[in-house]
Amino acid sequence: MKIRELGGEFKLIERIARPAKDPRVICGIGDDAALIRVDRGVQIVTTDMLVEGDHFSRAYFTPRQIGIKAMEINVSDIAAMGGTPTYALIAIALLRNTDVEFVDGLYEGIYAVADRYGIDVIGGDTTHGAVVAISVTLMGEAHQEHPCLRSGARPGDHIFVSGELGGSQAGLRLFLCGIDGFDDVKRKHTEPSARLDISREVAGYVTAMEDVSDGLASEVRNICRASGCGAVINADQVPIAPRVREAAKAVSGDALEYALFGGEDFELVYTVPPEFTGRAPGSCVGEVNDTKVITIRQGGEELTLEGSGYDHFA
Amino acid sequence: MKIRELGGEFKLIERIARPAKDPRVICGIGDDAALIRVDRGVQIVTTDMLVEGDHFSRAYFTPRQIGIKAMEINVSDIAAMGGTPTYALIAIALLRNTDVEFVDGLYEGIYAVADRYGIDVIGGDTTHGAVVAISVTLMGEAHQEHPCLRSGARPGDHIFVSGELGGSQAGLRLFLCGIDGFDDVKRKHTEPSARLDISREVAGYVTAMEDVSDGLASEVRNICRASGCGAVINADQVPIAPRVREAAKAVSGDALEYALFGGEDFELVYTVPPEFTGRAPGSCVGEVNDTKVITIRQGGEELTLEGSGYDHFA
Repeated sequence: MKIRELGGEFKLIERIARPAKDPRVICGIGDDAALIRVDRGVQIVTTDMLVEGDHFSRAYFTPRQIGIKAMEINVSDIAAMGGTPTYALIAIALLRNTDVEFVDGLYEGIYAVADRYGIDVIGGDTTHGAVVAISVTLMGEAHQEHPCLRSGARPGDHIFVSGELGGSQAGLRLFLCGIDGFDDVKRKHTEPSARLDISREVAGYVTAMEDVSDGLASEVRNICRASGCGAVINADQVPIAPRVREAAKAVSGDALEYALFGGEDFELVYTVPPEFTGRAPGSCVGEVNDTKVITIRQGGEELTLEGSGYDHFA
Repeated sequence: MKIRELGGEFKLIERIARPAKDPRVICGIGDDAALIRVDRGVQIVTTDMLVEGDHFSRAYFTPRQIGIKAMEINVSDIAAMGGTPTYALIAIALLRNTDVEFVDGLYEGIYAVADRYGIDVIGGDTTHGAVVAISVTLMGEAHQEHPCLRSGARPGDHIFVSGELGGSQAGLRLFLCGIDGFDDVKRKHTEPSARLDISREVAGYVTAMEDVSDGLASEVRNICRASGCGAVINADQVPIAPRVREAAKAVSGDALEYALFGGEDFELVYTVPPEFTGRAPGSCVGEVNDTKVITIRQGGEELTLEGSGYDHFA
């Protein structure tokens, strides 16, 4: 049986996940990161792997950008839990004939991000492989008693995103179509930036939070699935930069589709109880409700979301 | 410049490693695992990546064995620090058309090892790639105030190994030569077993410890390099199973070479001060001295080790 016949990535993860036996594990498989109770707080651990050809191409990523992206996507997972990153481990498979300059560039990017957030690179594994692969494990500390899980959203909460969406997917399409220019949009794909700033600001009052790695629709569905509720997304309120709309036009694409289903923007999406919506930063893009479905409203039209959003094995 | 022109893997790691700024980091890049001081003890973190074609082949590994090996090699790193494993994160890249049965088998192996040592699998990343790659991050706790670093060996210490060597490399050669039988030797390669039992027994008095991932000579050199000393290895005392000698003969190979330079046996090598040699388990294979070189003695012959032992980029 193929993974897509099983019902995709989510079903596969459900199938392989087991609850942790250690009571110190607050949150295991199924959120952006794992949470472990330690003596004076909560420790966070997350891991994300990038594989050449699937997640980046050396044709349009500099080595430094590969390092930046490998780190920022993990910082984004820590941000989504309302935490601060502390230590990183870097497992990397390199081609046998790799140039030292490639490794230098890669680590220049890794350390640039480490320095930005005060992360220590404390270990790893350097080995060889038929393709370049980088797996970063990032540890962190949660700010507060109750870190930001996916499962806390309640009907009536407003759904916010921390910034503009669709840029990463538009950037990717520009590369794939070989279109010159639009360097600012392309950098949204090659040099994403985690929203630790926003995470710190909202962690105290959001009921659920997640980073936008797989598109807004997919993340809202993850939150609703974990929280046992539904939501309406108002597509007209989804923030999209004018340059991203231009770029989408240049590749005959749809910027809203990139925002909803594209992914890799690494903005944060969070649910805010009504009493806090006045102070929440970012854009309100919808509301949690007591249905079991995700409805996308655009103009007078409504679309109910089927399937499971982005699926690596679709 | 190619990595081998730089001087290999060790020089590369020296080039990319930076000391940690956080004073809680007791040991960063350069040992089997990283050590972090926490409120009530020492936390251990390690990561190791396996890439298809380079570290395993689906031609002779069952999915279950891939899962077992990915876990055991990380448990072995925790054992080498004198610790106990606690939590694992599994980042895995699968081919797009992967069968669910492959993933089931892989996780059967992962959970078999997890259950054996009381490890909780608390997170990970499931993605796709052009080759199968598995990166396991394993956390653990150190037993004691002073975990077992590489750097504590002193002239006069005796060098012990926890069990027989050379089996993994002999097993690999049997597969590569297509030789039937020798299933017990082949399993040394496909189903290694970490020596957590021995680690617990010796952690209190060894001055340095490491696991044999890259061959005995290479590990002794790592210890000596970190400890600022040299060593003699008595090749005639290196324990090699008769079946491994037989297997080596069947592939026209040299069992002693496999033991010294082959690697992936995942036994432990540890240095023991003279007053504890009477109680140390395993086989004494040499002695630390105040030279700067590793000398291998066999019969009346002496070989001084050049280069840096096993190098992934040689």
